[in-house]
Amino acid sequence: MKKSALQTARAAYRPKLPVVLTGAVKAVEGEPTQSVADQEAIRQLFPNTYGLPELRFEKNPSPTPGKPINVGVILSGGQAPGGHNVISGLFDGIKKINKNSRLYGFLMGPGGLVDHNYMELTPEIIDEYRNTGGFDIIGSGRTKLETKEQFDKGLEILKELDIKALVIIGGDDSNTNAAVLAEYYKNIGAGVQVIGCPKTIDGDLKNEVIETSFGFDTATKVYSEVIGNIQRDCNSAKKYWHFIKLMGRSASHIALECALQTQPNICIISEEVEAKNMTLQEVVNDIADVVAARAARGDNYGVVLVPEGLIEFIPAVKSLIAQLNDLLAANADEFAALATPAEQRAWVIAKLTPENAATYESLPEGVARQLTLDRDPHGNVQVSLIETEKLLSEMVGKRLAELRKEGKYNGKFSAQHHFFGYEGRCADPSNFDADYCYALGYNAACLIEAGVTGYMSSLRNLTKPSVQWVAGGIPVTMMMNMERRHGEMKPVIQKALVKLDGAPFLKFASKRDKWALETCYTYPGPIQYFGPAEVCDQPSKTLMYEHPEKKF
Amino acid sequence: MKKSALQTARAAYRPKLPVVLTGAVKAVEGEPTQSVADQEAIRQLFPNTYGLPELRFEKNPSPTPGKPINVGVILSGGQAPGGHNVISGLFDGIKKINKNSRLYGFLMGPGGLVDHNYMELTPEIIDEYRNTGGFDIIGSGRTKLETKEQFDKGLEILKELDIKALVIIGGDDSNTNAAVLAEYYKNIGAGVQVIGCPKTIDGDLKNEVIETSFGFDTATKVYSEVIGNIQRDCNSAKKYWHFIKLMGRSASHIALECALQTQPNICIISEEVEAKNMTLQEVVNDIADVVAARAARGDNYGVVLVPEGLIEFIPAVKSLIAQLNDLLAANADEFAALATPAEQRAWVIAKLTPENAATYESLPEGVARQLTLDRDPHGNVQVSLIETEKLLSEMVGKRLAELRKEGKYNGKFSAQHHFFGYEGRCADPSNFDADYCYALGYNAACLIEAGVTGYMSSLRNLTKPSVQWVAGGIPVTMMMNMERRHGEMKPVIQKALVKLDGAPFLKFASKRDKWALETCYTYPGPIQYFGPAEVCDQPSKTLMYEHPEKKF
Repeated sequence: MKKSALQTARAAYRPKLPVVLTGAVKAVEGEPTQSVADQEAIRQLFPNTYGLPELRFEKNPSPTPGKPINVGVILSGGQAPGGHNVISGLFDGIKKINKNSRLYGFLMGPGGLVDHNYMELTPEIIDEYRNTGGFDIIGSGRTKLETKEQFDKGLEILKELDIKALVIIGGDDSNTNAAVLAEYYKNIGAGVQVIGCPKTIDGDLKNEVIETSFGFDTATKVYSEVIGNIQRDCNSAKKYWHFIKLMGRSASHIALECALQTQPNICIISEEVEAKNMTLQEVVNDIADVVAARAARGDNYGVVLVPEGLIEFIPAVKSLIAQLNDLLAANADEFAALATPAEQRAWVIAKLTPENAATYESLPEGVARQLTLDRDPHGNVQVSLIETEKLLSEMVGKRLAELRKEGKYNGKFSAQHHFFGYEGRCADPSNFDADYCYALGYNAACLIEAGVTGYMSSLRNLTKPSVQWVAGGIPVTMMMNMERRHGEMKPVIQKALVKLDGAPFLKFASKRDKWALETCYTYPGPIQYFGPAEVCDQPSKTLMYEHPEKKF
Repeated sequence: MKKSALQTARAAYRPKLPVVLTGAVKAVEGEPTQSVADQEAIRQLFPNTYGLPELRFEKNPSPTPGKPINVGVILSGGQAPGGHNVISGLFDGIKKINKNSRLYGFLMGPGGLVDHNYMELTPEIIDEYRNTGGFDIIGSGRTKLETKEQFDKGLEILKELDIKALVIIGGDDSNTNAAVLAEYYKNIGAGVQVIGCPKTIDGDLKNEVIETSFGFDTATKVYSEVIGNIQRDCNSAKKYWHFIKLMGRSASHIALECALQTQPNICIISEEVEAKNMTLQEVVNDIADVVAARAARGDNYGVVLVPEGLIEFIPAVKSLIAQLNDLLAANADEFAALATPAEQRAWVIAKLTPENAATYESLPEGVARQLTLDRDPHGNVQVSLIETEKLLSEMVGKRLAELRKEGKYNGKFSAQHHFFGYEGRCADPSNFDADYCYALGYNAACLIEAGVTGYMSSLRNLTKPSVQWVAGGIPVTMMMNMERRHGEMKPVIQKALVKLDGAPFLKFASKRDKWALETCYTYPGPIQYFGPAEVCDQPSKTLMYEHPEKKF
């Protein structure tokens, strides 16, 4: 593999471990824990792994020599910057325990465990991937580990390779499944520990005890770099409104963090739209009002950040989609028999409730039509195919035409569209993510040595320099509650949405009126690896506002 | 203005001037020059500024104190990283001549000169913008300075402000107009020198004497950063073909440079498509063949770079568009009277020549329809509205279906689309562009002091460290030839397209078969400002291959 100059230089970076992890450690137990809700139900589902204590590592003044251990590792779900560092930290950690320890990577996600596709990760392979982005070292995949058959099939290969511990690097679902697997292996006495690591650029795997998931820091910095560049262009040419959609189907943490980094004119937060029970038209009208207010100042340009999941947070659209799914599933043949788009449209409108019909009619025709045509294999409307950024700008254009007729708008409106997602998921990790991920992996090795299972690797005090981070383990059951999924109540890790009373949102809310009208763009620029600490080592603003007492 | 940490740190960067410019200079004249073609015609159009000698600056051992001079500066056309550094270099240069010199910026492009919109650029303003991206210091615009009326109107404000020299920062068209303006002012004895600076991210303003335009280096590095990130994602998820369109309507230098930086599976070079007289379907078939060949290896993923201008380089499409423009202009009412899209389509096909009809029918219906509907104010087809990246992937999908039927393809094809342009035009300049631009501006001040007009600011030996660059001036007429523009023969600077016998293309061509089949991605990562020189100070690969004797 031919490397770029930066790849070569960056390979030499040595992540800065928390001081406590630089020597031998012992696990100190806290009080027994409870799940965040539904304690009795969760306890019954996890009889062997419920109620475990939080663990905190401290220096061990009288360590005993460790025995070699074989460990397996899995990358699960979407890519996030730093995954390779979790693996290299884990590798170094188990080698520190005993130099004859071995690390096996299961290939292309959890499916590799079930299908027995794996490779041993040698020092040469590990060194090739230190401090790099991507999950290409062993690949990732979206197979869900959920069934007894999968667990048993996986156990075959774990036994064959004498693997005593499995580290699953994934988001909330993958860590939920890791906990179920841990409980199952514990219950049958399989002799395999399962440890999770919190991964997702979406930032929605966090709680009282997990300060952030890895990858969020780097991905939002890449998005903020290009948003900043677009803002500078916008402020130079002064002739376009840029609608920028940002990846993330559920929570709006990415959009919020990017807004705090770049100070755009508008940033929509899905959670707020839902809480205020706003219609799509109301969201559009709010944008149009800002466009008109800026036009009145002579500024016919601006930047709007749009979270990818917006559409699904709008109660009226959610209701429309639910009815469309039922309607089209129940009457597929009748619908298919209609000859023209116009007849199909009329048919749909006639069958919908008046509220849903009004929502349907408020959508641009192309989008409305797409909702009835492109459905997934389960027959569901494919909301992800809707180009929300174009939908919004088209509707804003129409609204502005109305405002113009009313004499309330006298400007020019020309839109550009962008969608950023794949641009950030595999970036080289920032120093924060490089350190955090390496420490998560190294710490996972310590949890393995401590002999525990059903824990998530945990580092806290993340707004302090990495050498001061607190290391330990959190029982995954502690983060769970019961939720309805596909019609069944399931134990799941609570997803963290943007809290409207949380510090990051309140900070944004206190500034946005000024940012809307005036032009207050900031330009974060590209991630830097070699410069001054205030440029290279800043954690995300979300993290800093959420943990101000530990301000960097 | 609240600044990001990087903005603050970067403000302190001191561009490294060529040694010769660090003291007093004298201009040494070379031989009289000739235009690259059409010498007699150009000479007649530029009686006062044709045939001037190249200038090269050398140290001046016995300088005389300079007098204060008032200078105007204009940013013309699309943004390019480094524009602010040209202005700060110019500012420092005229202040070095005499501390009472003054710099005026005309606002929002050449229109600011004609409409007398300007601001004085004070030290405080200049310091705010050093080493930053964007053209927001004074804004830019696309008004063309072409008419005597504009020139005379501009002269009014130049006289009012006692401005003796005007620096125009722009691309080939703007520098052509600068030369015409220089000739006019010289001819009427206006006493205003005009100096050009070579700007454009497209990289198509270069020749024997101008090694590169500024902004190309930074913009292609930003695009290569995100292309690399997408490639890493592509290689981790192994399930998508990413079609990435890159800004640049005419030349394919940007796509070629990005390909050399990132080693994608496919990069289309418009100039090659034209030279080989390829049809759109042939371009599509070539891509589909690579997709099929990779699928045969089990690799159902890849990356395709597409230059924005591709469509207009395909001879058959060019011919189709020309006929459509004529046809629809001549029969606008007849066409408008047709009731349905199907009738319109049939009408168009019946009127086209068989060759053009075949091309029209080969296009996806939506694209074909768009060609007849969305026309610009002059009635011309709006080629720029065509989403070439989607057009190609749609046609590739159809072609693969054919190959599958023939038993020649047995894979999965799922596409993602991206378009990068605004992401790079206003990035903070790389060290190369920061140094190059600052030196271009400073050098322009030296040309002003030398009393010349109709020159372009020139730095050469750019693949050597900036302190070794050669500084001087090139008569703009030297780069000119006569070309037909809007039906008239005009003197213009020859646009530099990708040379198919040039070193950058030959390097690419020698590697692309390997890159197509195997996965040879490199990941350049984000632009670095503070690290080792091999990471921070590398010029573009295009420049290095074109000037190997001066290899960095």
